[in-house]
Amino acid sequence: MANINDSSDPLHAKNKAWSGRFSEPVADFVLRYTASVGFDKRMAMADIQGSLAHAAMLQKCGVISAGDLEDIRRGMAQIREEIKNGTFDWQLALEDVHLNIEARLTALIGDAGKRLHTGRSRNDQVATDLRLYLREELDEITFLLNDLQKVLVNLADKEADTVMPGFTHMQVAQPVTFGHHMLAYAEMFERDRERLISLRHRVNRSPLGAAALAGTTYPIDREYSAKLLGFEAVMQNSLDAVSDRDFGLEFLSAASLIMIHISRLSEELVYWMSQRFNFIHLPDRFTTGSSIMPQKKNPDVPETARGKAARVVGEMCAFAVLLKGLPLAYNKDLQEDKEPVFDAIDTVKDTLHAFIEMMPGVEPQREELRRACQAGYPTATDLADYLVRKGVPFRTAHDVVGRVVRKASELKVDLHEMPLSVLRSFSDKIEDDVYDCLTLEGALKARNHTGGTAPAQVRRQVALWKQLFEKRLTDAHAGEYDR
Amino acid sequence: MANINDSSDPLHAKNKAWSGRFSEPVADFVLRYTASVGFDKRMAMADIQGSLAHAAMLQKCGVISAGDLEDIRRGMAQIREEIKNGTFDWQLALEDVHLNIEARLTALIGDAGKRLHTGRSRNDQVATDLRLYLREELDEITFLLNDLQKVLVNLADKEADTVMPGFTHMQVAQPVTFGHHMLAYAEMFERDRERLISLRHRVNRSPLGAAALAGTTYPIDREYSAKLLGFEAVMQNSLDAVSDRDFGLEFLSAASLIMIHISRLSEELVYWMSQRFNFIHLPDRFTTGSSIMPQKKNPDVPETARGKAARVVGEMCAFAVLLKGLPLAYNKDLQEDKEPVFDAIDTVKDTLHAFIEMMPGVEPQREELRRACQAGYPTATDLADYLVRKGVPFRTAHDVVGRVVRKASELKVDLHEMPLSVLRSFSDKIEDDVYDCLTLEGALKARNHTGGTAPAQVRRQVALWKQLFEKRLTDAHAGEYDR
Amino acid sequence: MANINDSSDPLHAKNKAWSGRFSEPVADFVLRYTASVGFDKRMAMADIQGSLAHAAMLQKCGVISAGDLEDIRRGMAQIREEIKNGTFDWQLALEDVHLNIEARLTALIGDAGKRLHTGRSRNDQVATDLRLYLREELDEITFLLNDLQKVLVNLADKEADTVMPGFTHMQVAQPVTFGHHMLAYAEMFERDRERLISLRHRVNRSPLGAAALAGTTYPIDREYSAKLLGFEAVMQNSLDAVSDRDFGLEFLSAASLIMIHISRLSEELVYWMSQRFNFIHLPDRFTTGSSIMPQKKNPDVPETARGKAARVVGEMCAFAVLLKGLPLAYNKDLQEDKEPVFDAIDTVKDTLHAFIEMMPGVEPQREELRRACQAGYPTATDLADYLVRKGVPFRTAHDVVGRVVRKASELKVDLHEMPLSVLRSFSDKIEDDVYDCLTLEGALKARNHTGGTAPAQVRRQVALWKQLFEKRLTDAHAGEYDR
Amino acid sequence: MANINDSSDPLHAKNKAWSGRFSEPVADFVLRYTASVGFDKRMAMADIQGSLAHAAMLQKCGVISAGDLEDIRRGMAQIREEIKNGTFDWQLALEDVHLNIEARLTALIGDAGKRLHTGRSRNDQVATDLRLYLREELDEITFLLNDLQKVLVNLADKEADTVMPGFTHMQVAQPVTFGHHMLAYAEMFERDRERLISLRHRVNRSPLGAAALAGTTYPIDREYSAKLLGFEAVMQNSLDAVSDRDFGLEFLSAASLIMIHISRLSEELVYWMSQRFNFIHLPDRFTTGSSIMPQKKNPDVPETARGKAARVVGEMCAFAVLLKGLPLAYNKDLQEDKEPVFDAIDTVKDTLHAFIEMMPGVEPQREELRRACQAGYPTATDLADYLVRKGVPFRTAHDVVGRVVRKASELKVDLHEMPLSVLRSFSDKIEDDVYDCLTLEGALKARNHTGGTAPAQVRRQVALWKQLFEKRLTDAHAGEYDR
Repeated sequence: MANINDSSDPLHAKNKAWSGRFSEPVADFVLRYTASVGFDKRMAMADIQGSLAHAAMLQKCGVISAGDLEDIRRGMAQIREEIKNGTFDWQLALEDVHLNIEARLTALIGDAGKRLHTGRSRNDQVATDLRLYLREELDEITFLLNDLQKVLVNLADKEADTVMPGFTHMQVAQPVTFGHHMLAYAEMFERDRERLISLRHRVNRSPLGAAALAGTTYPIDREYSAKLLGFEAVMQNSLDAVSDRDFGLEFLSAASLIMIHISRLSEELVYWMSQRFNFIHLPDRFTTGSSIMPQKKNPDVPETARGKAARVVGEMCAFAVLLKGLPLAYNKDLQEDKEPVFDAIDTVKDTLHAFIEMMPGVEPQREELRRACQAGYPTATDLADYLVRKGVPFRTAHDVVGRVVRKASELKVDLHEMPLSVLRSFSDKIEDDVYDCLTLEGALKARNHTGGTAPAQVRRQVALWKQLFEKRLTDAHAGEYDR
Repeated sequence: MANINDSSDPLHAKNKAWSGRFSEPVADFVLRYTASVGFDKRMAMADIQGSLAHAAMLQKCGVISAGDLEDIRRGMAQIREEIKNGTFDWQLALEDVHLNIEARLTALIGDAGKRLHTGRSRNDQVATDLRLYLREELDEITFLLNDLQKVLVNLADKEADTVMPGFTHMQVAQPVTFGHHMLAYAEMFERDRERLISLRHRVNRSPLGAAALAGTTYPIDREYSAKLLGFEAVMQNSLDAVSDRDFGLEFLSAASLIMIHISRLSEELVYWMSQRFNFIHLPDRFTTGSSIMPQKKNPDVPETARGKAARVVGEMCAFAVLLKGLPLAYNKDLQEDKEPVFDAIDTVKDTLHAFIEMMPGVEPQREELRRACQAGYPTATDLADYLVRKGVPFRTAHDVVGRVVRKASELKVDLHEMPLSVLRSFSDKIEDDVYDCLTLEGALKARNHTGGTAPAQVRRQVALWKQLFEKRLTDAHAGEYDR
Repeated sequence: MANINDSSDPLHAKNKAWSGRFSEPVADFVLRYTASVGFDKRMAMADIQGSLAHAAMLQKCGVISAGDLEDIRRGMAQIREEIKNGTFDWQLALEDVHLNIEARLTALIGDAGKRLHTGRSRNDQVATDLRLYLREELDEITFLLNDLQKVLVNLADKEADTVMPGFTHMQVAQPVTFGHHMLAYAEMFERDRERLISLRHRVNRSPLGAAALAGTTYPIDREYSAKLLGFEAVMQNSLDAVSDRDFGLEFLSAASLIMIHISRLSEELVYWMSQRFNFIHLPDRFTTGSSIMPQKKNPDVPETARGKAARVVGEMCAFAVLLKGLPLAYNKDLQEDKEPVFDAIDTVKDTLHAFIEMMPGVEPQREELRRACQAGYPTATDLADYLVRKGVPFRTAHDVVGRVVRKASELKVDLHEMPLSVLRSFSDKIEDDVYDCLTLEGALKARNHTGGTAPAQVRRQVALWKQLFEKRLTDAHAGEYDR
Repeated sequence: MANINDSSDPLHAKNKAWSGRFSEPVADFVLRYTASVGFDKRMAMADIQGSLAHAAMLQKCGVISAGDLEDIRRGMAQIREEIKNGTFDWQLALEDVHLNIEARLTALIGDAGKRLHTGRSRNDQVATDLRLYLREELDEITFLLNDLQKVLVNLADKEADTVMPGFTHMQVAQPVTFGHHMLAYAEMFERDRERLISLRHRVNRSPLGAAALAGTTYPIDREYSAKLLGFEAVMQNSLDAVSDRDFGLEFLSAASLIMIHISRLSEELVYWMSQRFNFIHLPDRFTTGSSIMPQKKNPDVPETARGKAARVVGEMCAFAVLLKGLPLAYNKDLQEDKEPVFDAIDTVKDTLHAFIEMMPGVEPQREELRRACQAGYPTATDLADYLVRKGVPFRTAHDVVGRVVRKASELKVDLHEMPLSVLRSFSDKIEDDVYDCLTLEGALKARNHTGGTAPAQVRRQVALWKQLFEKRLTDAHAGEYDR
């Protein structure tokens, strides 16, 4: 555990917040096994923020004096500086971020520090800290998703006309545009934003004042401390307030979906970069090489992202296992709530940053993409639709075209290369105008309705997205959340 | 696969919606391995509903005639009856619910049936069906959660004064009331409702018209069919529309949380029923016996529920594994989206029904619960708070009381049984009035703030819940959703 | 629940194995929620087998009479027939397979039936049944793995010389042979066999006689009943015997690996069938079509298999969640152990059957595979190795060839197309003989050591596999297990 | 990333093992996102060990000179020292442990260092390292399991006669002894050992020489390097050798079971320490306190362990997600194989250490345990068995005793407190001798068969365990593995 002082010297033991009842000091291995300061110190700023609000509330309610509050504020200001400067002396013997900060506060300001913990417990304190911390990270991730959407929309704008084969079952299906394909991902990340914004409401509630599990005997004002901390609401049941970690699983599930979307995109990037596809190029700076094969240029970023998706899914799973079957109210198992959430935050943010940097470098190989449409009869559906317009029921038309394709496959030609006479041998409804609907451009243009792949629709969507980005920016400037 | 006719007779093969291109019939094992009609036929009503809206839209847009629409409506009405009566002949050779219904329709009404599939594909059709189906089930589960909340609130009302030990780390912590404890679960199920209601918006969007993956060449009106089906919005990208299954994972995550809450409650019920706790009784009709031990009365329902929570968590996990890394647009893997969702729906509904029936039968053993407060010094915090009110800083007070408890533990007495002189040997701030704060009633009453366990607060919460139930009922009658 | 009679008529209630202590019948919903006969009846034959061994042991130990044993055998013979004929009347009210069979036995043979349950409990009975059942299925899956290996080895034999590009990071890396590639999967399935064979030892131990949790007061002989059932050992602790479900998780983990291997193979088959790869063809009978796109021929089997892999991984996860944190000895949660195991057994067996049928149909497109080696400089490593043989340190050679490749990439030529003069401009160690090592055949042949891709090595491996298959067959005929 | 130098200075870039083909340096974010040296440097010793064996093999086969080998050995000796002393300068720009060590080697010894990578790739190198590393850790964990078993067996020895209630469904079932209960866990950890020992064989195979994916053109001797490294076998297919990570999932599954066993034990310890059970005491040094409640003494170690079980289950799940669907041969996703395995190793070892230290401190409260048997009619089965011995069929006896219990429950007395006349009103087979079988000691003693809870059986098991420990020690001294 880096940067943690784990000397178990008696002075530290003396600082223990709970030693009165104990006849012997805690064993070293217990300390090491159960301490959390190694990872929970990243919530230090949230912990201080929560303590200051709690202190202000205590003073307002007459539980501590104005002088005490002044001392606490002064002490906390110094501790903040020490943490920022890296001079804060984290002690393993003090278990966690909360007791480390409180011990330092008492060392700095004396009795006022000992009064800070009045009317609260670590149980409501850690729940408060985690919510404050996660709230900020949710906002950050929401912004990053927006940035990634912008990158995708810009790419879609540039490639609104770029034809490529659309696949289902990895078989060539129908032509689509590269821009259309990129916008599919913008939609996914939009749902991810929605989920985070919805989750934020459930995170943004105050457990502070629930104390250990039952509330406290002091005349506290939970609504006041909640307001100071920007919480939308006060949690209405103290047992629930200290034992609720739903938001952890909900976050990990939302984070898993973000990573799953990244992983789906990565799967495509990896294949598109394969020599067999050759659909896109990536600049050298976004790729890595091989220690043995001198020719290799590997798409390490999307592959790593795909791997990291597994990690976040595992964390979601671990969190569910953790919670399932725990009785109320607080159990130490819950200490394991932090690392999966922290790691998922880091993973999601690093990954989004990587894709925001990399995606503008994607260079679709337009000629190759067009050439790829020549295999797989992507306009077969258009031929069926042509027959329908001539009065053939769709199922019958589908069957006719199926036989046309079998013939074309035997002849090793594409549909538009078949002579009219051959085509007419399958259906006499086919006439000279059939060739219009067998071109890629014709096929694209024809899919011109909401959500369709016609370049006009792609441009319309791009415009809608750009308006949305603009609106979000304005709202953010105006100090309002769209989340 | 029950009730599915799996004779692979040639007549059925002829009905295949896609056989024109194929030079040999599909192998039997492929059919069995890939067919889904065994489980997707439960979406039959949603499939018909979707087809009717699609047909109405096609007619409005001039793609099919009014006569065709009439025929389709008539045919579908008959199919609905056949399915309800159990006379519908499901064919394995027809793969899935969609082709089974379409084949029957064509058999009933001829060419109009063959025209129904114009401008859509099974890819957008199955996405539509699944959304319609899940939307209805979400509403059903939301109602069930409300019903379970009512049961819990009624229990809380009855037991608002019933004192019991609150536990953290399974150690006696502070006294709470049984009613307060029940309300903690009402809060959890409220968050579950919120999540379902939020998810409903993401489910309630129309993929219909995305066709195979790129939209269609017919002049369709996706907004119209969406409106007919009660969808809130139209999905804006056809590739995304056919490949999005986010809502499946989001549902399974929300369902996992419901089951985790049930599992936490179950854990408590199981222990509370144990002879060592003896906190509650359950009537015989809610328990089962042993094949060997004649005296046993086992809490099978909560234990089964705890087990079933694992099942839903596994389904969440499976779903994430399924989606991760799939390229766009549709891949057959997605067929595995249905069974976990269907099974989770059944499991959640069965479990909620079981708890709605069982929880009113829970009989708290009031005397035993009170007796249980006598071990574990649950008023120690109150003694510390007493000292704080006399001017001792909290940390110092905590230390003093810790030593008092150690003494009491050696003497094997409870705090209120210690003579004043002994208490004063630890702190001369302790005076005669200390005994007021060492009673259970005193401790309860003192925690009188939002979310606290004081009976007055529990009653206030019960009243708030009852208002909310009333409001929901009124809204539902007025045809409005609070979800 | 198909085929289960769920009428809760009093006659059935009378058959209840545990009703004496109860003052009211169990509620219907409890019965439905906690009954397992709907899925555990598939263990009926194992249940009868276990009961017969238990009865024989009771008789040998003098607990029941020879006449009783005779009656039990006669009754069980009839029940076996009834189950096989589908005439057995399964009753939901009798909870599970055990009580259904016992009730029927008593109906058939009277008091002897009531004596069968002497000295055992459902807790050891269900553990015994599950082990007997799983043991048989493990053997079946082990055989299927062997059959799939045969199919792969035959394919490898046929394609031992077929050159194809080997990929890392989906980038062309070095040439390999199709046969070599198939043998990689044979290795994976061999490890799967090893795991099942190792697991079989842990499954094949007898819990029978542990009774409810503590053993029994009758003078039983657990070694005798274990021997009758073919168990290798007797479980040495009764508490452990009834609560151990480790083998369930171990099986699901092994099953997950089987499915993961199938999924890796499927991923390759799906891409190889894509028009962009065009590495293999599959006969029409192994593919399916599209409801809208008449030209489609989709690789549904491998895609479905990939999806089903997710299912088994989810079941592994669910099982771990289930077990974690359960106290000893038996808890009803454990009833949820069966469905994931049963479903994984079915899924693995169905999938192996499908692949055993399909893989012989895979037709590698030899010309296309060779053509695919022309992109991506797969012999670049060979050029570096050439330089090393001329005395250049490997890292230096790697760097030189890296620059050669950059040049070739600019010139849009392959390495063997570069004139000697150009090659020599990078290193004067390069001489005329370099072109030998730049051919695909040269590259293949050169990798001629254990495990290398040289056709000679592939043939050697094929021969080793065939010897192994022969040996297994002989061992099986000789009545010996290689497992 | 602590202790990693991430300055991207050009000198480091120059050391890149693969830069020749690249026209621009890799972007910083790519480096940070894809580098693994932050966590894979813990395999440094295994990496050096593998390199030394590879070099010795190259020299033996004439690929490098004796002088080169000498240089490599000297350089590696120094690097080993630098790493042990903490003076090794890890560079983020060098990506991973392999390239960091190789670059340093080349800096120390020049060209010989550049020759080391001849005939291998990072793909087979990392697979070799991971196997060597895991093999050592498996042995370590196997030893720790043995140590924990010893502790449990000693406890069982001491408490072989200590009666306590055995529970099923958390309901008092039958009396068992505390020693018997402890031995159940010894059995579980024995299966864990078996699994690790079985897995070791699959880990202990050499991928070295598979090179990138296809083998190498040098005349290598894979059997020789395998022998030097103590591998049992050589992997027989190069594609499989570089892409196989089965052992990772198999390990995580085995590790999950270890943690699940610990979690089941922890669940019991936590409840047994609760005031309501009061079955055991733990010395203060193994517990922790509360920041608010001065009386609290919390079982943090078992609770933390229970939480950490969730973590390892999540890692198992993540690993399965990672592997599923990856095509051959190496993909960068596989880099994510290390952290879950490393973390699981740490977690399992820390946890086993903690329990080895803590379990000897468990103090069963013998009087309380005996008292606990007075509730719940634990001898009811014995009464039924008594009736069976008098000729009543078991099912009938069960029913009679069920009614006796109901009566006792109404009378609020235990079975042995019921007068003979009352007992006889249920069955005239009951006589004066019935009271012998209603005592706890009688019930214990009667379960005297293999695996039963009779103190004699517990002592027999303890003796068998002690023999086994002795044998293992002897084998270990004799240099033989029992694994």
